Amino acid sequence: MTSPAAKGVIHGIGLGPGAQDLMSVRADRLVRGAQHVAFFRKAGRPGQARRIVEGMLRRDVIEFAMEYPVTTEIPVADPRYNDRLSGFYAECTDHLAALSATGEDVVVLCEGDPFFYGSFMHLHSRLTGIAPVAVVPGITGMSGAWTASGAPITWGEDVLTVLTATMPEDELVRRIGDTDALVVMKIGRHLPKLRRAVAAAGRDREAWLIEYAAMPDQRVTRLSDADAVAPYFSILLIHGQGRRP
Amino acid sequence: MTSPAAKGVIHGIGLGPGAQDLMSVRADRLVRGAQHVAFFRKAGRPGQARRIVEGMLRRDVIEFAMEYPVTTEIPVADPRYNDRLSGFYAECTDHLAALSATGEDVVVLCEGDPFFYGSFMHLHSRLTGIAPVAVVPGITGMSGAWTASGAPITWGEDVLTVLTATMPEDELVRRIGDTDALVVMKIGRHLPKLRRAVAAAGRDREAWLIEYAAMPDQRVTRLSDADAVAPYFSILLIHGQGRRP
Repeated sequence: MTSPAAKGVIHGIGLGPGAQDLMSVRADRLVRGAQHVAFFRKAGRPGQARRIVEGMLRRDVIEFAMEYPVTTEIPVADPRYNDRLSGFYAECTDHLAALSATGEDVVVLCEGDPFFYGSFMHLHSRLTGIAPVAVVPGITGMSGAWTASGAPITWGEDVLTVLTATMPEDELVRRIGDTDALVVMKIGRHLPKLRRAVAAAGRDREAWLIEYAAMPDQRVTRLSDADAVAPYFSILLIHGQGRRP
Repeated sequence: MTSPAAKGVIHGIGLGPGAQDLMSVRADRLVRGAQHVAFFRKAGRPGQARRIVEGMLRRDVIEFAMEYPVTTEIPVADPRYNDRLSGFYAECTDHLAALSATGEDVVVLCEGDPFFYGSFMHLHSRLTGIAPVAVVPGITGMSGAWTASGAPITWGEDVLTVLTATMPEDELVRRIGDTDALVVMKIGRHLPKLRRAVAAAGRDREAWLIEYAAMPDQRVTRLSDADAVAPYFSILLIHGQGRRP
């Protein structure tokens, strides 16, 4: 039994790219043993993090779904976007901190790695100093993507640039032309812009789109053959071609 | 029983940053079940990959240590460096291909993720078409490093640049000044140059050196407080400071 004085630990657990057995041994143990599990999801959706652990949770688990109040309905630049999300993260933090205060550990399910993009960090920064937090790193979605592509992403002294397709087109062109290896995240409806930028940088014949890496419907396509809109779980890759003895 | 016609699979297994329980469930299962295990090491050293799996291998395992014929004794630019390594990788490939031809599976132990820098890719490219190869991604050393630092590496739309400290100083300065988040690998004796480059880019107050991430002697130091030479397993980080609602 936990003494009333001991606070519970909030664990941010990296689940990896999607396949259940690509979770770390530490993550697997914590997920299977958890009494309290929390996860983000878009309203009305099962949530990708929750889907990854399907069948692994205790029968008596208590689940806490944290539903984003907004995803793409309000532009990111609109101040209301920030306000809504900020209030939402504060509410989630209050809930988790209250559980911790009663001595309960909570496992927060995170796709990929908790400290590499992702939402858990917005709870982590708010929980610091309020509740004990522990982070378990995970295999990133991009590792899942380059493994799916069947080729190494970086050799020898290759420079790797990771960026999001949300940035302005001219900035995309500049950065895509100034790196050996490339990973682009958060593609979705930015795919047409990204495709133009890759072509303008003269690298369209090197670019691959990886959809649903490490999941059952995994797909590896040349960027030139891809559809107009990419699913949320898609990553663009250009492989480095560095020194190889 | 394996029929004589069926070739064995060469598995390139990402072991993650160092802690045994940060290996994936899939990697754990393959390592514990392996009859044949191969790994790279510097001559006269136990080898970091081999050290990670200490205590996990079968009693009757057959180990194959692949000892680099050269590491820093010959400059990388010297043609002999490339020749020596190339011959070495070819010999290792022959050994693994011969095992595969007799129907034996082999597990090749890889620190971090097999397709993210590292040596396994030099076997992978040579084995393709000769023997069946399967790759298990792993948690990268850099994920281990930013988790050890206790802070997220990238937020929102941060650009992350990953580079090696081996590159020319002016190029380091330029790239360190042109990114939000930064990871620098392969530091070692390049630390003084790297330190000058970080300062010249005006970012010395943001830089952290992480040594032996996820290992028992893990150490997180401000770059300004670091020693003159960094151990092989050290990574420099600058955390992104992007949008955080």
